[in-house]
Amino acid sequence: MFTHQTILRPRYAETDRMGYVYYGVYAQYFEVARVEALRSMGLSYKQMEDDGVMLPVRDMHVTYHKPAFYDEALTITTYIDSLPNVRIAFRYEVRNEENELLTEATTTLVFIDKSTGRPCRAPQPLLDLFVAYFA
Amino acid sequence: MFTHQTILRPRYAETDRMGYVYYGVYAQYFEVARVEALRSMGLSYKQMEDDGVMLPVRDMHVTYHKPAFYDEALTITTYIDSLPNVRIAFRYEVRNEENELLTEATTTLVFIDKSTGRPCRAPQPLLDLFVAYFA
Amino acid sequence: MFTHQTILRPRYAETDRMGYVYYGVYAQYFEVARVEALRSMGLSYKQMEDDGVMLPVRDMHVTYHKPAFYDEALTITTYIDSLPNVRIAFRYEVRNEENELLTEATTTLVFIDKSTGRPCRAPQPLLDLFVAYFA
Amino acid sequence: MFTHQTILRPRYAETDRMGYVYYGVYAQYFEVARVEALRSMGLSYKQMEDDGVMLPVRDMHVTYHKPAFYDEALTITTYIDSLPNVRIAFRYEVRNEENELLTEATTTLVFIDKSTGRPCRAPQPLLDLFVAYFA
Repeated sequence: MFTHQTILRPRYAETDRMGYVYYGVYAQYFEVARVEALRSMGLSYKQMEDDGVMLPVRDMHVTYHKPAFYDEALTITTYIDSLPNVRIAFRYEVRNEENELLTEATTTLVFIDKSTGRPCRAPQPLLDLFVAYFA
Repeated sequence: MFTHQTILRPRYAETDRMGYVYYGVYAQYFEVARVEALRSMGLSYKQMEDDGVMLPVRDMHVTYHKPAFYDEALTITTYIDSLPNVRIAFRYEVRNEENELLTEATTTLVFIDKSTGRPCRAPQPLLDLFVAYFA
Repeated sequence: MFTHQTILRPRYAETDRMGYVYYGVYAQYFEVARVEALRSMGLSYKQMEDDGVMLPVRDMHVTYHKPAFYDEALTITTYIDSLPNVRIAFRYEVRNEENELLTEATTTLVFIDKSTGRPCRAPQPLLDLFVAYFA
Repeated sequence: MFTHQTILRPRYAETDRMGYVYYGVYAQYFEVARVEALRSMGLSYKQMEDDGVMLPVRDMHVTYHKPAFYDEALTITTYIDSLPNVRIAFRYEVRNEENELLTEATTTLVFIDKSTGRPCRAPQPLLDLFVAYFA
């Protein structure tokens, strides 16, 4: 299993008139969390895309337990529970400064060869890095 | 069963460098779709909130089949499959101008009494309007 | 002079914890307003871009007089005060249902030839349509 | 004069189909920049708002010289050129990793007493901290 933590503060823009972080904003937080998780392994999502493989989201499941608020430091823990192949699955937990679990989510993304527009296996350099975590 | 259709066009702001509507934007589309669905029944979500009941999202599940693109007319069909009680569940289908199914989703929202911060039953005027659809 | 009106309702996502429409959201409203203004003349911004001319924003000036609120019908009046050449300037006024002037803004956009990445004259079909308004 | 630097990376969500950071997103970047500038002085914008003074934006002027791209490290330099009174003016410069000037902007914000809804002087603790920079 691979795990990584990212900390971010909700922007004013991301709150709503209820005073909560808007439920649709978490998709951005998960994006930041998985990109930073990959970066921590030495992988650049941008570079992978520039090299011809993109990674659109296939599904997302989010459970909102408690609201997040403006400017508090949120910790997003990202888990990759299994070795990627044509897909890569991320799991996320969002916690506030009191370590309360606010949100749980999963996303599945599909590797797409930009030249063909079709699903493809994860790039070898990515797989090589991941293998160590799932030995 | 209650069903309603809303049409909207993705904004340039909502696209990403892949040329797709960003996966996190759909949460906004579902918000628009359910608010317009309620409005079509004569219900104002804003008025309900001003009257002391708010309706945060408890969970969201989205499956992305195909991408949506800038400025195409998307039809969002909203379904309410069962009578609301403490929760209300919405189901959504997003289709493009060729009637291709792009996205399927569900969201569950919880009625919260703003004065207590606790879950409550759906307001009676809302229930009265819904009963006709589930007789 | 060319003028056009677009009506839109602020989304919950677009409000902030102050209960106002977030100041950065107006850029999206101006985008919608100018695209709909062009559409009303028979011009598709998307088509123009697909035909090889893009139109990035060069500057934006916004004055916020009063806040806009969730779900109220906002009327955005868009003005084009002079014939486009390498640039096109839009002016906007946002009013609420009581016809109060909430926001005034201008944006200048530059026609860019996608094949060269350099500024270019406005496409002839666009100029032909505009000439009638500035005779 | 007071100056502060914040670094952030554009999110995928913030790019558009042109491959650029969307022009409306910068308002969020300026928000982050000024909140972090105040934090660096020991001031919490959130605390000030919780203490009864809010700070809506009165005007914004942005000039877009060059585009910003996905995931590059942007440096936002924030300047406060004069002592705040009923208003506070921020000036911003956005630069990329090659130190190219991408965007210049100013925003003016107004201190509002939440209990009256009317403009008020900047809170004394904020003024006390600023005085040192404008002696």
